[in-house]
Amino acid sequence: MSNTEIALGIDFGGTSVKSGVVFRGQVIDSAPPIATQDFDGPEPLIEALLQTIATLRDRHQAIAAIGIGMPGFIDFDKGLVHALTNVPGWESFPLRDRLEERLDVSVTVENDANCMTYAEWRRGAGRGLDNLIAITLGTGVGGGVVANGRMVRGSRFGAGEVGQMSIDWEGKRGHYGNAGALEEYIGNQEIAVRARELYAEAGVEKALSDVTPQQLSKLAHAGDETALKLWDEIARQLSSALMSCCWLLNPHAIIIGGGVARAGDVLFSPLTQHLYEQLSDPFRENLMVLPARFGNEAGMVGAAALALEEAGYAVDP
Amino acid sequence: MSNTEIALGIDFGGTSVKSGVVFRGQVIDSAPPIATQDFDGPEPLIEALLQTIATLRDRHQAIAAIGIGMPGFIDFDKGLVHALTNVPGWESFPLRDRLEERLDVSVTVENDANCMTYAEWRRGAGRGLDNLIAITLGTGVGGGVVANGRMVRGSRFGAGEVGQMSIDWEGKRGHYGNAGALEEYIGNQEIAVRARELYAEAGVEKALSDVTPQQLSKLAHAGDETALKLWDEIARQLSSALMSCCWLLNPHAIIIGGGVARAGDVLFSPLTQHLYEQLSDPFRENLMVLPARFGNEAGMVGAAALALEEAGYAVDP
Repeated sequence: MSNTEIALGIDFGGTSVKSGVVFRGQVIDSAPPIATQDFDGPEPLIEALLQTIATLRDRHQAIAAIGIGMPGFIDFDKGLVHALTNVPGWESFPLRDRLEERLDVSVTVENDANCMTYAEWRRGAGRGLDNLIAITLGTGVGGGVVANGRMVRGSRFGAGEVGQMSIDWEGKRGHYGNAGALEEYIGNQEIAVRARELYAEAGVEKALSDVTPQQLSKLAHAGDETALKLWDEIARQLSSALMSCCWLLNPHAIIIGGGVARAGDVLFSPLTQHLYEQLSDPFRENLMVLPARFGNEAGMVGAAALALEEAGYAVDP
Repeated sequence: MSNTEIALGIDFGGTSVKSGVVFRGQVIDSAPPIATQDFDGPEPLIEALLQTIATLRDRHQAIAAIGIGMPGFIDFDKGLVHALTNVPGWESFPLRDRLEERLDVSVTVENDANCMTYAEWRRGAGRGLDNLIAITLGTGVGGGVVANGRMVRGSRFGAGEVGQMSIDWEGKRGHYGNAGALEEYIGNQEIAVRARELYAEAGVEKALSDVTPQQLSKLAHAGDETALKLWDEIARQLSSALMSCCWLLNPHAIIIGGGVARAGDVLFSPLTQHLYEQLSDPFRENLMVLPARFGNEAGMVGAAALALEEAGYAVDP
């Protein structure tokens, strides 16, 4: 085990901050999560985070870099948090510099969906591929893009927002006024609302807790026609956005993670079918539609792998 | 004028093959076009092309590379033509090797939309930008993608097919079964059909020749409400696909060329408005929507610039 292969990956979520020591894509140690609500603004939270970092570095002195994944709009080059989703007080906060001035180790800050993409690309389902798209299906729909063997961040580090892409130019408006935003159709909560409507049409009343993606997946696996119909429609809508991604970027793989993806076959089977039937041979022949390898650890694993590369260490096989 | 700055650009279209000598983005000499219909298959056409090449090389001995842009599915790495749109006999044809074995100069073969993209990126409206999307609006809708300062070709060289992207998951099927394919809404012929329908609804009969993009542009500039309404709808549909491109890739510029783009303000003004109002700040602030600099010469200019770079010459300012 050489120095160069261990990094600290931090998954900075809306409610808690998880820290793990990562070795070749595996979380080999972790600290108790920090609850963001216990802290009033960035400064006290950073003090708590520095303590967690110190504890883990005491136990693993080989830690060579620290990576942090955050939900929000991040300036990757500057390590600056422009804004953080659901956490106030983080406007234009220079997180990387603030940590590096207190630490003798390199820090990298990146958007959480890009960290998930990085985890799958470097250590997961998309390993070795130069062109791929990763998406995560949950309350929101996020994603990331790799092209020509590099992360695509774009002119302001915003690239990869698959959930904001349009599937209907006259459709429902998304959070940013974007007509037909995918997220408005297949986000967790939308799925629940649609499920209740479909069941009501079939004369069945369902509580919200009975139409979670997990419940709907169980129902579909048991042959429930309403649930199967819903998953097929979700698959058609998702395939529309992914088809657009394919025509634009001709990726080798589409990697799908997040809670909704755990539905498994009832989603992947119609999704693959609807996607393939809307592509020509050069776009279809090389294309793999793959479930993500990492679940809750994707953020930590990806942030750690990215941090090592940014610090100049090669990611080896 | 040094050796390294002159290349031969060949625009291999469905009906004719145009050859030009290109110096820093300018066509400084050209040969009479070759009509593809005069030749029975690739071999006799290649003999004619070799004669054209010889004539131009006699006049410009500094030609350092030859680039060829073709409408169809091209294996860029191998210089292989998988299939050529509207020209039979070109299945799996190794064009680069066939020419290089008869010439003492490097040959590059690329898809024509990528050549157009290359022209705008290296010599035109997108010069100096590392992240851009170029599209061309005509009978078909094509395009190309630059990310991280490199052309994105994807796993089988198919990337950039903006016209096949979906703007409606339940919409009209495109050529490849793809529901809501943009090209089915805003291709030249579709625009004409829609224009006649809109005028018929308004009680006006129009001949097909009166509803070309040029005529519709004139009508709109003169204040014709039906034409203005049509251009606004075209702009909304186009903005839907471009918005998806922006959310996915966060480009610095979208460059729009082709015959339909010559409509000018009546297209660009509503297009820019509809696009900007469906993006968040990081995606909108840096974004330029620009008319293409090159018209009919884009293919030759782009193929020439690309050929020089592939042959190892730097494209200088």
